[in-house]
Amino acid sequence: MSNRYQKGLEQLEIMNKGSYKILKESLDDIAPDLARFIAEFAYGDIYTREDLDLKTREISTIAALTAMGTAPLQLKSHIHGALNVGCSREEIIEVIIQMVVYAGFPAAINGITAAKEVFEELDGDE
Amino acid sequence: MSNRYQKGLEQLEIMNKGSYKILKESLDDIAPDLARFIAEFAYGDIYTREDLDLKTREISTIAALTAMGTAPLQLKSHIHGALNVGCSREEIIEVIIQMVVYAGFPAAINGITAAKEVFEELDGDE
Amino acid sequence: MSNRYQKGLEQLEIMNKGSYKILKESLDDIAPDLARFIAEFAYGDIYTREDLDLKTREISTIAALTAMGTAPLQLKSHIHGALNVGCSREEIIEVIIQMVVYAGFPAAINGITAAKEVFEELDGDE
Amino acid sequence: MSNRYQKGLEQLEIMNKGSYKILKESLDDIAPDLARFIAEFAYGDIYTREDLDLKTREISTIAALTAMGTAPLQLKSHIHGALNVGCSREEIIEVIIQMVVYAGFPAAINGITAAKEVFEELDGDE
Amino acid sequence: MSNRYQKGLEQLEIMNKGSYKILKESLDDIAPDLARFIAEFAYGDIYTREDLDLKTREISTIAALTAMGTAPLQLKSHIHGALNVGCSREEIIEVIIQMVVYAGFPAAINGITAAKEVFEELDGDE
Amino acid sequence: MSNRYQKGLEQLEIMNKGSYKILKESLDDIAPDLARFIAEFAYGDIYTREDLDLKTREISTIAALTAMGTAPLQLKSHIHGALNVGCSREEIIEVIIQMVVYAGFPAAINGITAAKEVFEELDGDE
Repeated sequence: MSNRYQKGLEQLEIMNKGSYKILKESLDDIAPDLARFIAEFAYGDIYTREDLDLKTREISTIAALTAMGTAPLQLKSHIHGALNVGCSREEIIEVIIQMVVYAGFPAAINGITAAKEVFEELDGDE
Repeated sequence: MSNRYQKGLEQLEIMNKGSYKILKESLDDIAPDLARFIAEFAYGDIYTREDLDLKTREISTIAALTAMGTAPLQLKSHIHGALNVGCSREEIIEVIIQMVVYAGFPAAINGITAAKEVFEELDGDE
Repeated sequence: MSNRYQKGLEQLEIMNKGSYKILKESLDDIAPDLARFIAEFAYGDIYTREDLDLKTREISTIAALTAMGTAPLQLKSHIHGALNVGCSREEIIEVIIQMVVYAGFPAAINGITAAKEVFEELDGDE
Repeated sequence: MSNRYQKGLEQLEIMNKGSYKILKESLDDIAPDLARFIAEFAYGDIYTREDLDLKTREISTIAALTAMGTAPLQLKSHIHGALNVGCSREEIIEVIIQMVVYAGFPAAINGITAAKEVFEELDGDE
Repeated sequence: MSNRYQKGLEQLEIMNKGSYKILKESLDDIAPDLARFIAEFAYGDIYTREDLDLKTREISTIAALTAMGTAPLQLKSHIHGALNVGCSREEIIEVIIQMVVYAGFPAAINGITAAKEVFEELDGDE
Repeated sequence: MSNRYQKGLEQLEIMNKGSYKILKESLDDIAPDLARFIAEFAYGDIYTREDLDLKTREISTIAALTAMGTAPLQLKSHIHGALNVGCSREEIIEVIIQMVVYAGFPAAINGITAAKEVFEELDGDE
C-alpha cells in the first residue's frame, strides 16, 4: 500500500468513507485499479492540497457535477461528502440553484432532485 | 428601471462592474434584453441570495465553467469576479486543478490558461 | 405574488400546466424559489416574448434538449408542451431525427425513446 | 455522383450554398468523403424530409448548436442558412435568448456573439 | 431495400446483430427511418470503410461514449459490439479507465458500471 | 523526483515529448503541480498500463476529444502523439470521421480541421 493510497484513505475517512466503500466493492472484481486511483489521486493528491478548505472544495464539486449533468450518482455522493465536512443543506441547495445561471434550469432541477434524495435517505435513517 | 435591475447593478458594482459594462455594450444593439436579464436575474435574483457567501459563489462558478469547457470568456470574467470579492489567486488555481478529477486534464489545463491570461492582464496594468 | 409570476402561471396554463404542477410540488419543500424562478423567468419573461411563435419555441427546446442529452425528464415535459401548443407528433419526431446531424445517433435515439414514452402515456389515457 | 448527393446539392443550393462550398474546399484534400456525407446524408436525406418546414429546421439547429456551445463556426453557418430560408434576424435572436433557460447565460451570450458577427458580415457587404 | 441498407445489415451481422434487432423493433412504430439511417449510414457507409480495423473502431466508440457520458445504453451496445469483433474484456476495461484522463473519474466509473452490466449479462447466459 | 514522475517522463519521451515540454513551461509559473500530475498520473500511471497498445490508446483519445469538442489544443497534441507512436494519417482521419455517428457532423468537421492543422505544420517543417 503506497503512502499516497494511505493518505487518500485517511482523507476519505474524513470526507466520504461510506461512498468509497460501496464504490470500491463494486469495482473490486472488474477494475480495482480505478478504485485505487480514486484514493491515491483524487483524495491522496488533490483533496489533501492546501489553499482551499474542504467545504469550498465539496461545494465546488457539487457545482461542477450539477452543471455537467452526466454524473447523478457522483453528485449524490458529493452531497453526502459536503454534509460530512460541515456544509449545511441550505448551502448545498444554494449552489445548485446558482447553476441555473451557467447550465440552465434542467441541470439545476436535476441537481435539486439529487439533493432531495440524499436528504430523504438521511432523514429516513433517523 | 425595475427594482430587480437596480439591485442587480448594485450587486455587479461589488462583483464585476467592468465585465458587465463591456458585455452590455456588445449586446446593446442586438439583444439588449439579454444584458438586462443578466443584471435582473443572475445578479439581482441569484447572487444577492443569502445562505452562501460571494467568495464561495464565485469559486463555484469557476468550478462549473472550467468543467463545462464551453465558455472561456465567461470563465475569465468570473476569475476577475472572484478576485474582486476577495478570493486569492491560489484559491482560484486550486479549484481549477481540482476539476481534473471531475472533467479531466484538458478542462483543467484550459481553465489554468484562462486564469493565467487574467493574471497577466492584471499584472500588466500595474 | 409578483406580476411576472402571475404572467408566468398564465403562460404555463397555455403551455404546460400539468408538468409545472408536478415540478412545483416536488420543489416546494426543498427549493421553492427554483419553481418560482421557472414561472417568473422561463415562462413569465422568456416564453411570453414576441418574435417567435410558441410552436417554434417548443420545437427548438426539444431540439436543444435532445442534442444536450442530459435532461430526459425535461425533454419529455417539453414534448407534452409542444403537443399542447399545437405541434404534431410528426413534427416532434422530425426535429429529433434532425439532431442526428448535430449530436449523433445516440442523442437522437434517446430523444425518440422519450417521445415514444410520452405518446404511449397519452394513448394509455384514451 | 449518387442521386442522394445530387439531391443534397440541390437542397444546399436553397439553404446554404456558400458555406458548403467553403467547407468542401477545406475538406477536399484531407477528408473529401466527410463533405460528401454532409451533402448526401445531412442535406440529401435529412433536410429534404417532409413534416417540418425549413425555417423551423434552421431555427431548431440554431437552438441546438447554441445550447451545445461546441461548434461556433457551424452555428454561424446555420445563422446564414436560417436567413437564406426566410427567418428574420429577430427570430434568430429570440431562439438564442431562449437557450438561457436550457443551457445558461454563457451559451446564450456566445450564441448572440455568433449572430452579431454574421449580421455584421452581411451588413458590411452592403 | 437499398444497396447501402443491405451492406449495413451485413456489417451489423458481423458486429452487433442483436442490439440492432432490438433497436429496430423499438423504432419501427415511431421513427423507422432512424433505424434505416443507422443501418445505411452508420454501418453501411462508416463501419465498412477501410483504413481502420473493426476492433479499433469499437474501442474508439467506447472511448467516445464513455467520455460523453450521455448515452449509457449505446455504450453497453458497443461493449457487446467490441466483444463480437474480438476485443477482450481487458481491452474494454483499459480504454474506459483511460478516459479518467480526458473526462474525469465519474465518466470512467459510469463506463465501468456499463461494462460490468454487460459482462454479467453474458456470464448469466452461460 | 518520484518514480512515477520519472516513469511518466520516459513514457512522454516515446509518445509526445514536444507537447509536454511546451505545456510544462506554460504551467511552471502558475500551476506546476498540474504539469507534474500529467506526467505522474496520465503518463506514469495510465499510458504505461498493459492490455492496450499505444496506437489504440492514442486513437481512442482522439475519438474522445473529437466527440467532446471542448479541447481543440489537446486534440492537436494527441494527433501528434498518435503519429509518434505509429498511427497513419489515414487512421487518424478515419476515427475522426467515425465520430459523426456519435457526436454529429460539427464535432467531426472540427476534428478534421485540427488534424489538417497538425499535418500542415508537419509538412511545413520538411
